[in-house]
Amino acid sequence: SFSLPQPIQADQNTPVRKIAIFGGTHGNELSGVFLVKSWQENGAEIERLGLEVRPFLANPRAVEKCCRYIDCDLNRPRPRLLQNLNPTPELANNVPYEVQRAQEINSLFGPKGQPGAYDLIFDLHNTTANMGGTLILESSSNCFAIQMCHYIQVFKKRGGDHNGLKNHIDGFCFFSPGVEVGPQPQGVLRADILDKMRTIVRHGLDFVAKFNAGQEFPPCTIETYKLLEKVDYPRNAKNEIMAVIHPNLQDQDWQPLNPGDPIFLTLEGKAIAYDGEVTVYPTFVNEAAYYEKQQAFVTTSKEKLSAKGLRVS
Amino acid sequence: SFSLPQPIQADQNTPVRKIAIFGGTHGNELSGVFLVKSWQENGAEIERLGLEVRPFLANPRAVEKCCRYIDCDLNRPRPRLLQNLNPTPELANNVPYEVQRAQEINSLFGPKGQPGAYDLIFDLHNTTANMGGTLILESSSNCFAIQMCHYIQVFKKRGGDHNGLKNHIDGFCFFSPGVEVGPQPQGVLRADILDKMRTIVRHGLDFVAKFNAGQEFPPCTIETYKLLEKVDYPRNAKNEIMAVIHPNLQDQDWQPLNPGDPIFLTLEGKAIAYDGEVTVYPTFVNEAAYYEKQQAFVTTSKEKLSAKGLRVS
Repeated sequence: SFSLPQPIQADQNTPVRKIAIFGGTHGNELSGVFLVKSWQENGAEIERLGLEVRPFLANPRAVEKCCRYIDCDLNRPRPRLLQNLNPTPELANNVPYEVQRAQEINSLFGPKGQPGAYDLIFDLHNTTANMGGTLILESSSNCFAIQMCHYIQVFKKRGGDHNGLKNHIDGFCFFSPGVEVGPQPQGVLRADILDKMRTIVRHGLDFVAKFNAGQEFPPCTIETYKLLEKVDYPRNAKNEIMAVIHPNLQDQDWQPLNPGDPIFLTLEGKAIAYDGEVTVYPTFVNEAAYYEKQQAFVTTSKEKLSAKGLRVS
Repeated sequence: SFSLPQPIQADQNTPVRKIAIFGGTHGNELSGVFLVKSWQENGAEIERLGLEVRPFLANPRAVEKCCRYIDCDLNRPRPRLLQNLNPTPELANNVPYEVQRAQEINSLFGPKGQPGAYDLIFDLHNTTANMGGTLILESSSNCFAIQMCHYIQVFKKRGGDHNGLKNHIDGFCFFSPGVEVGPQPQGVLRADILDKMRTIVRHGLDFVAKFNAGQEFPPCTIETYKLLEKVDYPRNAKNEIMAVIHPNLQDQDWQPLNPGDPIFLTLEGKAIAYDGEVTVYPTFVNEAAYYEKQQAFVTTSKEKLSAKGLRVS
């Protein structure tokens, strides 16, 4: 569940004024749905002085049906989805629901650079993978984003959460961090996962409020995981899966995977080994939504990212 | 995921000749789907001398879409669903898919007492609850079923699996054991869960083969869990959930729950206590499919069941 590429970017030195929190971008990832609905009733937890914070249900029809999407994945729109199609009323019914919805979202929260556009969007997701609390960034050079990750990571550690915070970079150029927390089955709410997600959002908002108030954030470095490649399940001629994730890899997101380590297991008990040439760090291991996307897990490499000092101008 | 109430019953003293193994009664419970498809390609693992064993995909359209059901739950048909509606061709399109499918299944594997009817059906299910390997029975007085449970339980223990085997009784009068294994998210295949399910089916078939071959099974007693009541989530006026399963209860299926123990937790951090008067044993705790069925968990009581000795006549 990569983050929605909204064309919105926080200018790194001007105050942040408008923040949106998206839940239900995928309708069966319930932590964000539950938090957004609750915050729409009572937003005290997400209020910060001088900040407009808007909790928003991104895909209400998918939420209603408790499924990932109705017609197509809202999370994979890319520029095509955000084109202003201006369909005639007769055509409108043929436009996939998520395409219409992406256009609505773009006009409500963007477009980038327009007056009234939002500065920052937290996009709340769950995964069935054992990823803990993960922030997914879209740029490796956004000092504001790196500083925010650093801030959240430090506070989470102080709070006793040693799951770590990962910063996953997949080549987008806007700043709307994806908050990805697991493991949690689709259609299920777990108290522990809910707590991790709230903690990330709360610290993220605290960071912005302190930044707005003039706090100086000295230069910092964080450890991140950079996307390398997607690995699919072994499949037969009918495109059906012929092996499952090996028990040694299951639930081992972010742990080193070495060449020759087993990654899949067939029903006959045959292990299939990783044939890469270097040690990698798998994640999104056995994510339910990625079976249809031909993806068993992704590999990443560790990468340190540095940010210069930050202070509101 | 209670077992499909097929009107088929093994006569307790005559040889068992025809066994069906159903996977995909719910299309997003993937262990059974994967096993049945694999066994349809290569059935060596489920072949037993003198037994006809047929692996069968119960709800192929739901499997195709990786959802629980298309129109209605195949698992809740009850007699109404199995009536022979004999719809005219014009009406046939309006009959819910699972109603049509239940009729097809009944004519393929039943009806009870007809020549050619199957003696036994293993109905393979997954749950997101931490239930381990569970056999769901429909009668507390079926000696054949109790003996089979006892046999599987003994073999699982020998194999080092201490999750235990529970026998859940919900008042039906036929014998088609539901095999319920978790925790596994919907739409996900886990190697550990797959292994538990295979082991149960294998030992179940072994038991039948030994029974057919004349082995005598002495009187035995097993510990089972009898369904008491369903407990729903706290909900608001819009029927939306207002609290989640308390961390003390999450993943604690089959563990004692005492009066006053916390069962739910609100977003404000308020614990809601169990207000029953006796100690119970919750299960199906936080099963994804039961949110829409207004069920957070069920309570059970422990009950010993005894069977007289069994030998083929």
